Amino acid sequence: MEIIEKLKHILLQVKEKTPLVHHITNYVTVNDCANIVLALGGSPVMADDEAEVEEMVSIASALVINIGTLNSRTINSMMIAGKKANELNIPVILDPVGVGATSLRTKTAKLLLENIHFDVIRGNLSEIKLLAGLSSKTRGVDVDIQEQDGMEERKKLGEELSKKLNSVIAITGKVDSISYNDETYFIHNGHPMLSQVTGTGCMCTSLIGTFLGTGEDKHIATVLGVLTMGISGERAYKVIMDKSLGTGSFRTAIIDSVSTMTPEIIHEYAKITEE
Amino acid sequence: MEIIEKLKHILLQVKEKTPLVHHITNYVTVNDCANIVLALGGSPVMADDEAEVEEMVSIASALVINIGTLNSRTINSMMIAGKKANELNIPVILDPVGVGATSLRTKTAKLLLENIHFDVIRGNLSEIKLLAGLSSKTRGVDVDIQEQDGMEERKKLGEELSKKLNSVIAITGKVDSISYNDETYFIHNGHPMLSQVTGTGCMCTSLIGTFLGTGEDKHIATVLGVLTMGISGERAYKVIMDKSLGTGSFRTAIIDSVSTMTPEIIHEYAKITEE
Amino acid sequence: MEIIEKLKHILLQVKEKTPLVHHITNYVTVNDCANIVLALGGSPVMADDEAEVEEMVSIASALVINIGTLNSRTINSMMIAGKKANELNIPVILDPVGVGATSLRTKTAKLLLENIHFDVIRGNLSEIKLLAGLSSKTRGVDVDIQEQDGMEERKKLGEELSKKLNSVIAITGKVDSISYNDETYFIHNGHPMLSQVTGTGCMCTSLIGTFLGTGEDKHIATVLGVLTMGISGERAYKVIMDKSLGTGSFRTAIIDSVSTMTPEIIHEYAKITEE
Repeated sequence: MEIIEKLKHILLQVKEKTPLVHHITNYVTVNDCANIVLALGGSPVMADDEAEVEEMVSIASALVINIGTLNSRTINSMMIAGKKANELNIPVILDPVGVGATSLRTKTAKLLLENIHFDVIRGNLSEIKLLAGLSSKTRGVDVDIQEQDGMEERKKLGEELSKKLNSVIAITGKVDSISYNDETYFIHNGHPMLSQVTGTGCMCTSLIGTFLGTGEDKHIATVLGVLTMGISGERAYKVIMDKSLGTGSFRTAIIDSVSTMTPEIIHEYAKITEE
Repeated sequence: MEIIEKLKHILLQVKEKTPLVHHITNYVTVNDCANIVLALGGSPVMADDEAEVEEMVSIASALVINIGTLNSRTINSMMIAGKKANELNIPVILDPVGVGATSLRTKTAKLLLENIHFDVIRGNLSEIKLLAGLSSKTRGVDVDIQEQDGMEERKKLGEELSKKLNSVIAITGKVDSISYNDETYFIHNGHPMLSQVTGTGCMCTSLIGTFLGTGEDKHIATVLGVLTMGISGERAYKVIMDKSLGTGSFRTAIIDSVSTMTPEIIHEYAKITEE
Repeated sequence: MEIIEKLKHILLQVKEKTPLVHHITNYVTVNDCANIVLALGGSPVMADDEAEVEEMVSIASALVINIGTLNSRTINSMMIAGKKANELNIPVILDPVGVGATSLRTKTAKLLLENIHFDVIRGNLSEIKLLAGLSSKTRGVDVDIQEQDGMEERKKLGEELSKKLNSVIAITGKVDSISYNDETYFIHNGHPMLSQVTGTGCMCTSLIGTFLGTGEDKHIATVLGVLTMGISGERAYKVIMDKSLGTGSFRTAIIDSVSTMTPEIIHEYAKITEE
C-alpha cells in the first residue's frame, strides 16, 4: 500500500531534520506536548509573549496554535505569530480546544480563521462542526450529522470544510478521518483509554505539527500524526493491561511508544482505509 | 458501617454522571489535577480568563478555586466564577494554597471568603488556622493548637470554622479531619511520601470537587475525596516499595490507583472514625 | 578525593535543612522542577506575581530565575525578587533558557545581569557564549570556540565570565564544566537521552538552587547539582534499557533516581576532573 511507504518516509524525516515546532498553547498539557515532540525526534519551543513570537516563529519549521487556555494576552500572540508564519510559508496547525463551549473560544476561533491560513485543523467532531458553521456564514453548513461516528458524514463535513478553508481537516474520535479536498483517509487505530488522559488531543496536534515541520505532503503528514497517536494508544494499553496498571502508567507508556516508534511498527499496526 | 455504603455509592455516581469540574487553579499542578479528575471518571475543564469563566462555570457541575499561583488576572476570574457558581447553586471548593505566606494570598483568601460561599474548604493545618483567624476579626480565634496533629484541636477548629462559614472544613495531614457543623470524621489513611510529590493537596481538592459534582451530600463527598487520596498513597507506596522505586513512580502510581479505585478497595482500606 | 566528601556532605544537608527554593520559572517544566526539588528533600515554592515575590523570596533559602517562557508580567517579578534576594544575601541562580533565540530573551538577560548579582548561572554552551558577549560590550568576547565540546575552551569561557560576573558558571553538555574564578571542575557523567526529555536543564538548575539553599560553598553546590542530574541520567537509562522502555519512563526514572540518591551512589558514579 503506497501510503504506508510515505508514512514511513516522513517518520524518518523527523529524525533527520529535527524540526523546530513553535507552540502557543495551553498551560494544562504544555509539558506533554513538549515531551511528545522530543519523543518523536523534533525540537519543541514554547513562547507566547507578543514581543517575541514573530522572531521565534521565523526560525521554526511549524507553528502549533492551541486555544486550550485562552487569555487576552495570548490571543494577540496567536494572531501575530500566525500571520508571520503565513508570510514565511511556515505550516500552521490549529487545535480549537473547546470551541463552542464559550463565546470567547468561538469568537477567537473565528478571528483566527479570518486572519490566518491554517494548513491543518484538528479537533473532535463537535469542534469541527462548530468551525464549519462559523466559517460559512453565508450559506450555512448543510451537513446533518445524525450518527456521532458516521464515516459518511465525517467525510462530507471534512471535505467541505477542507475546500472552504483550503486546509487539511482531521476529525479525531473512535474512527479518525483526515480530509483534504476530495480525499479522505480513515484511521481505525486507537484505544478508548486515550480519552481518560488529559492532553492526548493536544499531543496529537503536536505530533502533526512535528510531521508538518519536515516539509512533506501535509495530508500524509496529518495522517501520520493521527496514526502515531492511535498506535501509541494501542501499544500503551498492552503495557498496562499486562500489569493491571491505570491511566498514570498509560500516559507514560504513550510517550514511550512515540519515542520507540519505527517504520516497522507503523507497518504492523496501521489500519487505514480511503473512501 | 453506614458511611462506607454512602462512600461506595458516590464513587459509582461519578462514573455514571461524569461531572464537569471547572478549575481556576495554579500552573504548577494543573496537569495532575486534570488527570486525577479523568482517572476518577469526571471531566475537567481549566479556564481562567474573565471573559469566559462565567459561561464555563454555568455548564459545570462543580468549581474548584485554587490559589497556588495567584496573579491579578486570575484573582478577578475567581471572583466572577465563584459568584456565578453561588448564584446557580453549583458547589464551590477552595484550596487556599500557601495562605499566610504572603499578604497577597491572605488578602485574596479574605476577599474570596467575603464574596463567595464555599461549600468546602480544604487545606493543611496552618492554612486552615490562618483562615479561621481571618474570618473572625472581631473575636479572634480562641482555638489554641499546641499539638500539630491533635485530633481534639482539629475537631474544634474545623467545627468552629464550619459553623462560621457554613462550609465543610477538611484539614489534611497525618490524620485528616473533615468537619461539618458538629460532626467530624477522621481519616487514618495516607502515606508520608504523599508530601514528597507536588500537587497531592491540589489533587485531593480536585477529587473532592469531582465528588461534589455528583450532587451528593457534601460532607460525605469531601470525606470520600480525602479518603481516595489517602488510600491511593498507600496503594502507590506498595507498588514502589516492591520495586525499590522513587517519588516519580509513586506519582504515577497515585493516578493509577485513582483510576482503578472500586467500592471494594474503599471497603478494604478505609480507616474512618467519627468523634 | 576531597571533593567527593564535600558533595556527600551537601547532599545530606538538604535532607537536614529542607531549603525553601523560590522559583520564578516557565510553565512548561514547572511541575518537574517542583518534583525534583521535593525528590531531593527540599521544599519548592512557585510564585511570580509582583505583589508577592518580595515577601516570598524573603522567607526562601534560594531563588531560581528561569526565563523559559518570559512575559512582561514575570520579567518585572524577576527583577523585584532578584534585587530583594541580593539585599538579603539569599543565593540567586539564573537559567537563561533560549537566550539569543529572540531579542526579548537577550534584552531580558542583559537587564537581569545588570541589576541582579547571580551566584550561579547555568546554561548550555550557546547560551553561556551569548551571555559572555552580552556582558562585555566594550571588548567583546575573545574566546573562540571551534570545537563544540572543547574542554579547554569551556574552561576559558567559564572562568572569564565567572570573574567578570563574580558568579559560578555551569556549562552543561556532553561534558559539563563548572567554573569559579580560576578553578574549573569537569563532570563526565550523564546520558544522551537527557536531551530527549523536556526540562532536564531546568531541573538541573532547580537541583543547584536546592543545594545552594543549604548555605554551603556555591562552587561545590553547583558541581553537586550538575552531577546529580548526570548520575540520574545514567541510572534512569539503566532502568529503561533493561525493559526496552522509552523517554516517558526515562523521565519518571530521573525523578526516582534523585529521590533515592545517597552519598554512596555519588561516590560510586561520580566522574569529576579538575583542570
